[in-house]
Parts: sequence; structure tokens; C-alpha cells
Amino acid sequence: MSDPTFLSLPYRTGKPRLSGLTHVLDKGITPAAAASLVAGAGDHIDVWKFGWGTAYIDRSLKEKLRLLADHDIGACLGGTLLEIAWAQGKADECLDWAHRQGFPHVEVSRGVVPMSPTEKRELIRRAAEHFIVLAEAGAKDEAHQLHEDEWAAEVAGDLAAGAKWIVAEARESGTVGLYDSAGDVREDIVDAIVDAGSPDRVFFEAPRKDQQAWFIRRFGANVNLANVALDDALSVETLRLGLRADTIGVGCRGVLA
Amino acid sequence: MSDPTFLSLPYRTGKPRLSGLTHVLDKGITPAAAASLVAGAGDHIDVWKFGWGTAYIDRSLKEKLRLLADHDIGACLGGTLLEIAWAQGKADECLDWAHRQGFPHVEVSRGVVPMSPTEKRELIRRAAEHFIVLAEAGAKDEAHQLHEDEWAAEVAGDLAAGAKWIVAEARESGTVGLYDSAGDVREDIVDAIVDAGSPDRVFFEAPRKDQQAWFIRRFGANVNLANVALDDALSVETLRLGLRADTIGVGCRGVLA
Amino acid sequence: MSDPTFLSLPYRTGKPRLSGLTHVLDKGITPAAAASLVAGAGDHIDVWKFGWGTAYIDRSLKEKLRLLADHDIGACLGGTLLEIAWAQGKADECLDWAHRQGFPHVEVSRGVVPMSPTEKRELIRRAAEHFIVLAEAGAKDEAHQLHEDEWAAEVAGDLAAGAKWIVAEARESGTVGLYDSAGDVREDIVDAIVDAGSPDRVFFEAPRKDQQAWFIRRFGANVNLANVALDDALSVETLRLGLRADTIGVGCRGVLA
Repeated sequence: MSDPTFLSLPYRTGKPRLSGLTHVLDKGITPAAAASLVAGAGDHIDVWKFGWGTAYIDRSLKEKLRLLADHDIGACLGGTLLEIAWAQGKADECLDWAHRQGFPHVEVSRGVVPMSPTEKRELIRRAAEHFIVLAEAGAKDEAHQLHEDEWAAEVAGDLAAGAKWIVAEARESGTVGLYDSAGDVREDIVDAIVDAGSPDRVFFEAPRKDQQAWFIRRFGANVNLANVALDDALSVETLRLGLRADTIGVGCRGVLA
Repeated sequence: MSDPTFLSLPYRTGKPRLSGLTHVLDKGITPAAAASLVAGAGDHIDVWKFGWGTAYIDRSLKEKLRLLADHDIGACLGGTLLEIAWAQGKADECLDWAHRQGFPHVEVSRGVVPMSPTEKRELIRRAAEHFIVLAEAGAKDEAHQLHEDEWAAEVAGDLAAGAKWIVAEARESGTVGLYDSAGDVREDIVDAIVDAGSPDRVFFEAPRKDQQAWFIRRFGANVNLANVALDDALSVETLRLGLRADTIGVGCRGVLA
Repeated sequence: MSDPTFLSLPYRTGKPRLSGLTHVLDKGITPAAAASLVAGAGDHIDVWKFGWGTAYIDRSLKEKLRLLADHDIGACLGGTLLEIAWAQGKADECLDWAHRQGFPHVEVSRGVVPMSPTEKRELIRRAAEHFIVLAEAGAKDEAHQLHEDEWAAEVAGDLAAGAKWIVAEARESGTVGLYDSAGDVREDIVDAIVDAGSPDRVFFEAPRKDQQAWFIRRFGANVNLANVALDDALSVETLRLGLRADTIGVGCRGVLA
């Protein structure tokens, strides 16, 4: 069936995307559900993160990695798993294992174990030899959130060390990092990140609809969004295209009024 | 397997229902998941709304429409899509397209673009020539909520214009329209709506369990409920039948105590 | 595919588990989705509760019970259904029906109908003749929560009457019983329950991630957790193993720092 064409919609990038990527969070979906999802919404998904340590115990890992490769979706190892391995002196073993499984992407973060910015950049360099690296910036602990200048330094340092993209932290909850504890966007942080990188180099973690809509209204249809729930992949695409109340008229102002 | 019969339960209408309809919100479920859901809970689902503009980009639209028709579930085009088309001067193109796809129902709303009540009633009249029309009443914008008399006027006007049912707004969040920002029912609004129509002509959007239970306790097992999450279809049926704590004894008072 | 082994992880019990059981809440999932879930995460699920009265109207009950038996997962009838039957003078009919369907477990509770502790213990005794009994302690009504000594008396009395396990109430919301209305753990209640039974005899209802993490940090990887959402089964296993930020280092302190 061909897509309908009667509406004027904003320009939308296509695969393989350089901007406007959607990055989803897999918390342990079954392979059958993953296959069904990817068949329908695969065009709208660019990066697929196996959240935290789920990949380590997911018996269907190989099957899912094959499925994602077949649909041009970049599978990404969660940063928490690599952090734990690093803290146990097993970072190389972890990266070797991920490489053998077939992960094209890994996330490098320092959100849960004591790791200095220097140590993180060294880990990014090692990972970048074999993987596309997404470097997560920001802290998971509500009590130890970064200041604007710390965000800026981390973003610039991680990109210099070889990260292809920055992932700006919000967790699955959307209540830390980019957001306050109520989930509202901290615009000062967003400004600091964008000043230090370029919006194209940054994924904004935006698990909630209001957060997704905020970034689309601010940066347009082709902003990079991360930690989108699997069930929301099609919904996020409608937000990007201005097909939902929250983003009506985005990217084609003047058409509606 | 035959249903068990050892409990006394409230009277429940059967398909095709004139009252006690359950209206679910599809945010972009896969066809495989839809098929599995409908096989198990299809008897408890009467109207299936393709939320906002999802139908416009859902590659599996035809397949899902066939599935719903096979299970006597009325597929309904989301109102936001028709609003956007109307604002772009493409309302007829949108209705023609929906007709060709095989939608039996459309929703007509004025929640997101500037449309007067008169223009909305004109759109209801045009849509009613080929579709069963659900007219959505209420505003999506928290800052511009309707007063009681505005609700009453909209309900009466939309029914007079040819709408078969009114859908009272609450969005997917359940925090506007019928509810305050905490999700609690605004009883004055409910009274105004029911006074202007009849409860049988109204779908109350009730995405949250406490909201579903409130309407069932207030109007009985066979109230019309809308924007029910797909995963909650069976759960709502247990609420209607008094098989969950929140509605114990509904519709058959005296049996329990 | 064999599991990776490069990390040091806490000791984890295996099936059939005497401790460290995960009890999930089925709100009406389709049989196809249940089969897919159990194929992937079945090793991490020990008890499967058919929530409240869903079993009474679930057409796929037999099929799901067969599936669970095949994967050594204990199917459990929800307590609300038995309460309603008891209030209608049909407790024996309900237990007979559950036995014929093939349920190995039933939950006995007094959360929604007026039932004295004595009547509840009598019902536990009757149920224990044919079933493994999980006795739910605590009240569902926010306005009538139990005091510490009432919790202790109920736990001790239910175990003495023949319950194999206690299930400490929190509902699907996680905002009553063990928790305050914000979902925070009431530690005085937890202490009272553990003093009256033994942690191994208690399932703590913990529907939210922060609640699951709290009990794992407090009692270790092999605490019994109940009312886990089906989609969270794999995620809870990563929490138990310290593979997620919230429980990093649990059960193997010293390894990380």
C-alpha cells in the first residue's frame, strides 16, 4: 500500500540518517515482539539500545541482533554493563564479547561507578577502535547532578576522544540530567550541551511524550531523540511530522494559520 | 471452553452494543499484536480509534482494518488528522481517503486547530454522509478549557448536526477536559454533558483505572468508555462486571452485603 | 547460545526456587504474548497470578495454564475472585472450579469484602487441602490501612492456618500497604512483617522499579518479589544481579570499590 499524500508535512530525513535519528530502549522485549515491531515501525528506528545489563542475560540476544542488522537498525550495548565490567577490570573482555556477538555500537558512560572523565575518555578511545561509540553525558544520581560547565566539558571531551554521538542523560524515568525531578526540561543544560557540540551530534534522552514534543518544537522534526519506549516508535514519528496535537505545525509554520 | 457461571454478576450488554461500549486507543500497535489481542478480548471492544495521525503513516493500516471488520469492531479515524487536513483545506481529500481505506467511523473534533463551533458542525454534516460520526467535545489545551455551558452547547449542537456519539475529551493522559490536572473527575462537567445529551450518547474518555471505575460506579456496568489502552481491554471488562476491588458490588448491590 | 561469564555476579537461586522467587501479575495478556514471554524469560518467573477476576472471563485460560505448567511456573488464582465468591456463599464452587481448571496455587485475601481474620484463616484451611496457598496480608483501601501489630498478627495467623507464603499488599499501583501514597516503603511495616514471619515466607508486592530495588538492596538478590509487571520480568532479574544502576554492587560488595 502506498502512503497517502494529501497533507503538507515537514521534511523528514530517511535511512541511513545523519540527523533525525530515533534511539529506542529495549528493556527485555521478546524476539517475536521485536520482529513484529520492526516489521511495522523499523523505518522509524535507527539505534536500538539493550538497556543496562539486559544483554548479559538475554537468551535471545543473537536472534535479536540478526533481526536488527536485517533492518538497518544499529544495535547498541548499554553503558551500565560496560561500566560494571570496567569496574571489575574486565572492560576488554566485555568489548571482545560484544564484538563477537555482533554489536556495531556501544555506549560508554560513567553514570554508576567511580570513573574519572579521563578514564572515560580512555575507554571511549579503546571502544572506538571496533565500535561506533555513543558517549553518555550526565549523572544518574539525583543527588550528584552536573553543572552546566561540567556538561559542556564532558560533551567536548567525549567527542574529541572519538565518540560519534553524545547521549544526554535522563534515564528511563526522564527525571534527572536534562530534566528536573518533575520531568521538565532544564533549558540551561540544553543550551550548554548544544553550545559544546552541535545538535546533530547529540541524542536527547526523552522518554516522555511531553519531552519528545519539547525537543521537536525547539529543534524541529529532525532532532535526535533517545530512550524512546519501543511501543512509542510510531507515535514519535507522528510527533516529528506534526501529526499530533503537541507538535501541530512544527517545521511548516504558516501552513496551518 | 464455556464460561464459568458460579457468580452473580451485573447485566452486561452484548454485541452489537447500544450502550456499554468500550472504545480503545491504538497508538501504533503491530498487526500481529492486534490480531492476538482481538482474538482474546475482541468481544469486549466496540470501537478502535487510530490515535491522532497514526493512520496516515501506518503501513499496516489495510491489514488492521480487515482484522477489525472481521471481529465487528468499528475502526475510527482519529480527529486530529481530520483537523489538520481541514486546516490545510483538504478535509474532503481526507474523508475520501478514509472511505477508500474502509473506515466506518470518523471522529470530528476542534481540539488543535482554530475551528469555530459552526465550522465543526458543518464538518460533522459532511462526514455523516458516509461515516458514523463521533464528535469530540472539549479542548486539549490546559489553558483553554471549556465552561459548563460551553460543553452543553457543544454536545447539543454536535448531536443535532448528525453525530451519533459524543466523545468527551480527556486526552491519553486523562488530565484535561473531564478531569482536572491531577486526573480527578470534574463532576460539574459530567453533569453538564449528561444534561445536554443522554448518557447513552456519550463516550467518556477514561484512560486511567480510577477514572474507569468512577464512571462505572456512577453510571453502572454499561457506561460508554473511551480511550482505553489496548492492554486494558480485559481489565476494563472486569471493572464493568465488579470483578476488581474498585467496582466490587457495582450493578448488583445487596448481593455482597 | 551459552551465557557470558566475564562478570562476577551475586549468587542466584535456580528453579524450583525456595527463595528469590519472582511473582508476576497478569492483567489479561494474550496467549501468544504469554508464550513469547515465557520462552524468553520463563526461567526468571516462578508464580503467575491471574489478577483479580480476570481468570473468570479469560477465554484462553486453559491454554495459558497449560503453557505455565510446561515451564514450571505456578499459576495462581487472584484473591479478589475468591473473595467475591466467598461473599456470595460460593467459595467451594470457586475452589472446585479452579481445581478443575488446573490451578496449583490460590491466593486468599480479605482486601475487598467484609471478612474477619478468623473467617480468612478458615478459608485458608479449606483452600490448603487442594492448593498451595498464598495469603495476602494488608488492606486495599487507603482509608483503612493496618497498623504494625495488625500486620504481625495477620502474618502469623495466616502461616499457622496453612499458608505457604504471605503476600504483602501494595496493589498494582504500589501506593498502599507496604508503601505510603507516594510509593515510598514503610519500613516499620516491613520490619513488623519480617519479625512475624521469616523473609523467605514473604512475597513483597513491588510493582515499581524503585520498590524492587529497595527490597533487593535490603534483603539481597534472592528476596521474593510479587506483582511484577509481565514486561519487567527480565528487568527485575537484572536488578537482582546488580546489572542496573539502582542495585549496582548488591550481594557482592567489595567487588566494585
